[in-house]
Amino acid sequence: MKAEVIFTGTELLLGQITNTNAPTLLRQLANLGIDVYREITVGDNQSRLVAAIRQAGERSDLILVGGGLGPTDDDIAREALAEALNLPLVADAQALETVKAFFSKLNFSMPESNKKQALVPAGGLLIENPIGTAPGILLKHLGKIYFLLPGPPREFSLMVANHLVPLLQDLNRGQPTVINSRIMKVCGMGEATIGEILKDLMAGANPTLGTVAQLGEIHLRITAKAADEARSLALITEMEHEIHRRIGKYVYGTGEDTLESVIGKLLAARRYTLATAESCTGGLLAHRLTNIPGSSAYFMMGLVAYDNRIKTGVLEVPARLLETRGAVSEEVAAAMATGIRRLAQTDIGIGITGIAGPGGSTPEKPVGLVYIGLDYRGKLDVRRRQMWGERQEIKERSAQYALYMLLRTLKNNNNAGSATH
Amino acid sequence: MKAEVIFTGTELLLGQITNTNAPTLLRQLANLGIDVYREITVGDNQSRLVAAIRQAGERSDLILVGGGLGPTDDDIAREALAEALNLPLVADAQALETVKAFFSKLNFSMPESNKKQALVPAGGLLIENPIGTAPGILLKHLGKIYFLLPGPPREFSLMVANHLVPLLQDLNRGQPTVINSRIMKVCGMGEATIGEILKDLMAGANPTLGTVAQLGEIHLRITAKAADEARSLALITEMEHEIHRRIGKYVYGTGEDTLESVIGKLLAARRYTLATAESCTGGLLAHRLTNIPGSSAYFMMGLVAYDNRIKTGVLEVPARLLETRGAVSEEVAAAMATGIRRLAQTDIGIGITGIAGPGGSTPEKPVGLVYIGLDYRGKLDVRRRQMWGERQEIKERSAQYALYMLLRTLKNNNNAGSATH
Repeated sequence: MKAEVIFTGTELLLGQITNTNAPTLLRQLANLGIDVYREITVGDNQSRLVAAIRQAGERSDLILVGGGLGPTDDDIAREALAEALNLPLVADAQALETVKAFFSKLNFSMPESNKKQALVPAGGLLIENPIGTAPGILLKHLGKIYFLLPGPPREFSLMVANHLVPLLQDLNRGQPTVINSRIMKVCGMGEATIGEILKDLMAGANPTLGTVAQLGEIHLRITAKAADEARSLALITEMEHEIHRRIGKYVYGTGEDTLESVIGKLLAARRYTLATAESCTGGLLAHRLTNIPGSSAYFMMGLVAYDNRIKTGVLEVPARLLETRGAVSEEVAAAMATGIRRLAQTDIGIGITGIAGPGGSTPEKPVGLVYIGLDYRGKLDVRRRQMWGERQEIKERSAQYALYMLLRTLKNNNNAGSATH
Repeated sequence: MKAEVIFTGTELLLGQITNTNAPTLLRQLANLGIDVYREITVGDNQSRLVAAIRQAGERSDLILVGGGLGPTDDDIAREALAEALNLPLVADAQALETVKAFFSKLNFSMPESNKKQALVPAGGLLIENPIGTAPGILLKHLGKIYFLLPGPPREFSLMVANHLVPLLQDLNRGQPTVINSRIMKVCGMGEATIGEILKDLMAGANPTLGTVAQLGEIHLRITAKAADEARSLALITEMEHEIHRRIGKYVYGTGEDTLESVIGKLLAARRYTLATAESCTGGLLAHRLTNIPGSSAYFMMGLVAYDNRIKTGVLEVPARLLETRGAVSEEVAAAMATGIRRLAQTDIGIGITGIAGPGGSTPEKPVGLVYIGLDYRGKLDVRRRQMWGERQEIKERSAQYALYMLLRTLKNNNNAGSATH
């Protein structure tokens, strides 16, 4: 089965929002082994959306349209689908009741403009949207399947998961080819070096191997086709082992793993506790660590010590260190790590201090200079790094590096740690 | 001038990464008044990229390609451009030196595979990339302009800003039509309600008005065309005034404004100081506040009090409150706000406590229940909200609501505040 994906939204073409619906949808299609060769974005212009739907219908079996189902006049997806297939738009009485019920549940009366959300091209089905007013639309026409999804990301992803995926799984049964994909995540080695070490594997046709550079890490994508699931997974596993043999030390996880999720599993398994004291990263490290469900089992406390008074008063960093070495220094990073570990009574303390910019730099201490201290049960490790980019990127690279240091520490202290618990 | 934008990357079509380069580029094109009717993504497949480049060349004046310039074998953009236009690829000796110099600056020797980054279709120019190994490529051919940009977001945006925009500004001089756009940001009112109040404005042809729903806020986009800059801006300003007249109370900013940047300006102007104590948001509120350059002038301290020991020991939340009311309660949110304000000695303290999930809920306290306390110089305000969505979304909605409360407080205490400083 071949699919084509169309997004509509002038705000997308004007660059005012980032299309996060695309990866949500495309990841699911890839998992189902459905080929997508093109993804197209057009504005809220009915004739161009009509043309895109017609073209997609000529070369694909499944045509997915995201956006344009809202209540305002620039929402034109249902009208465009009807025009593209020369079908009339008809009102669906039950859908109208559903939209009304959505509003009354929130104790609002339904705005008049929401009425148009109950219209559907003749022969189409309205698909329930339990968390918004815009239902989806499913239409089978001349052997092709058209599926329209509402644009707000939460509604979009819920409709993909609850309606589109089950529909496609049904259609997929008995297909002769299965495609599987696996991501391996690498931290601490550059993309070109990886590309040379894995050059022969990247030249293969099945499985294929590709690299993607992300902030502070590289993702490797293995994709295999085979007649059945077991054979396809075996091809992937075989290549995965070969990659592990060559660069396994730098592979930290697969799939949906993140540095913070892998770290979380290690901390939880060993019953270690953790606390963080951040200056330049401003809470981002704590935010990433607490994105993991169950992190309250090991993450005890985060401190954003922005003001020097907080560094001395709460963290007990000696005032003379701040005076003689400056707030951005190896000594202060170490004192922050040790201070937060003592205050929170944890196994591990991390201290980060640096200059996120754009202001605050001196000739000796440029924007991007960061010190990261890690106190593991009294054993101190402090690293100096020169980060680059804008303020937010410096925050992100610094938090990423702190997580990388933490992962290395946990890996290097495997046996020592578990013995004491 | 009409432009078409093409991105290449199998990882995009497989949904493994989000295309953040698209908004970076499209925003700049919109600012320059260049029409973009289509944005297309294809995989790392040379024949489909060749077809996309040829099609784009038939209907547009400017063809922009993002990605596919890296050193590995799945990077095929330069080969595809050469094939699409039937031009040979030639080596650029000077570019090779530049790539070598990039590596020697970092004390690395150049991997062999990076050599191909010095190839260019005959007649094309390599465009310097000061922060990466992949130069861009500019080629003028049969009256059309082709521009290839490297995919890593930091390199991409730098090349857009430093090379593409100046080039297009030069070409643009003397054009008869100027397009301008302005975003107004609204918080505290729903999209359908806004759509009804502004229905007549949204039906207009010039300026046009569109709405986009974001997490916890709505963005309004006004776009105007005119013969010159002044007239185009006047059309926008006229509509902006009318929108302010109707829903001005809910408009918090324009353009690149965020809740945290608007709040930052108000805090700095009044010399107020701020500290935060977070539980369920895990540092996200501090992270957003410290994303603003200069935030160290007013943001003193953030505390992530994940463990109850930290709530009692550091914040001095009475232990009996935690026992009798529970950590997620109105009383604890208030005590956290007051506790952090006292500890950091600030004008304002914010306390957030809630259940981010997926675990930790009870029948009385479901996932998403959040209490937010705000202590403004001893005047307490506590709100109870039921958030929805996954863990990260609950964190985001909670931080967003805390910022909204803070903004309202600052707006409502305008005169009282400035009198005391």
